[in-house]
Amino acid sequence: MTPADPLTPERILEATEDVLRRYGPAKATVVDVARALGVSHGSVYRHFRTKAALREAVTARWLTRTEVTLTEIISASTEPAPSKLRHWLATLFESKRHKAGDDPELFATYIVLTGESTVVEEHVRELVGQLREIIEEGVRSGQFAVDDAAVAAQAVFDATARFHDPAYAAEWQNPAIGAEFTAVSDLLLRGLRA
Amino acid sequence: MTPADPLTPERILEATEDVLRRYGPAKATVVDVARALGVSHGSVYRHFRTKAALREAVTARWLTRTEVTLTEIISASTEPAPSKLRHWLATLFESKRHKAGDDPELFATYIVLTGESTVVEEHVRELVGQLREIIEEGVRSGQFAVDDAAVAAQAVFDATARFHDPAYAAEWQNPAIGAEFTAVSDLLLRGLRA
Repeated sequence: MTPADPLTPERILEATEDVLRRYGPAKATVVDVARALGVSHGSVYRHFRTKAALREAVTARWLTRTEVTLTEIISASTEPAPSKLRHWLATLFESKRHKAGDDPELFATYIVLTGESTVVEEHVRELVGQLREIIEEGVRSGQFAVDDAAVAAQAVFDATARFHDPAYAAEWQNPAIGAEFTAVSDLLLRGLRA
Repeated sequence: MTPADPLTPERILEATEDVLRRYGPAKATVVDVARALGVSHGSVYRHFRTKAALREAVTARWLTRTEVTLTEIISASTEPAPSKLRHWLATLFESKRHKAGDDPELFATYIVLTGESTVVEEHVRELVGQLREIIEEGVRSGQFAVDDAAVAAQAVFDATARFHDPAYAAEWQNPAIGAEFTAVSDLLLRGLRA
């Protein structure tokens, strides 16, 4: 990519992610981002009005990647709801585990960034909303029986925290974690079934 | 308590807890403990050979208090296994929430101490063992159906992490936490039932 390319928000966010990975969240500045792009920092501020807004946008983009992958499971798949739910939970776990394992420094950076903003709350709301869709689908097909799909969705999300909450990232490399994930998923699936 | 009282391990552990609460885990020393008891530090070392051994013993004592309360539910109660399990989970949550809420400084101190030693692993093994007893009781009475009680016990423990893992202590004061606990417990109980 050269300075001649149009300066899109997406290019700025990519450069910001690189800068954050290199310098860490404490040191990375908008000037660093502008320098990496070969533009003035004023050009960056035209797209993101504050450093906080830029950091929040890069965090939201990072979280959205997982949401998009998960949405595809809901819309594309013809699986019955129980196996779709299992598939969704496993994909969420894999996505978080990969992010933590493949690039631990960037992951640690994002932990700092998510602590600064409310985008995590929106991310959690989106994920719980997706779970609710799957549970409602299962209720319509007669495979799940729940009193309140929204409550059940929140309960499934809470009960699987060990497999998606970054607080547990250090345990995601344990050899037993896969079996533990299966045991929790089995128990929850049994709890939802009609 | 006066220096004339015999210097028992229990007295040393009580004084250590006081000293930790007052000075914090980084600053508290064996000399501080000895001074609080009006004895020489040599007298303390006769009971606990190193500072690390003393800190580990005080942590184990703190964790054991919860274990003892929970054991009483298992042995004393004539409740059927499903309500016993719910009672046990609620008591574990209450015990942790009280420790975190009533004395946040001591709680923070213990978080540091538990990170230093292996007593937490033993604590978790004890708690999962207690859950297994309740689940086996439910299987014998025909109220629970599980393939493997040990696996199910670990799954129930993992699925309720949000309600006992100190990593979530900040969320235990949320108004919604009680309803979330009930929803997760309901789902798990449904998953275990025959």
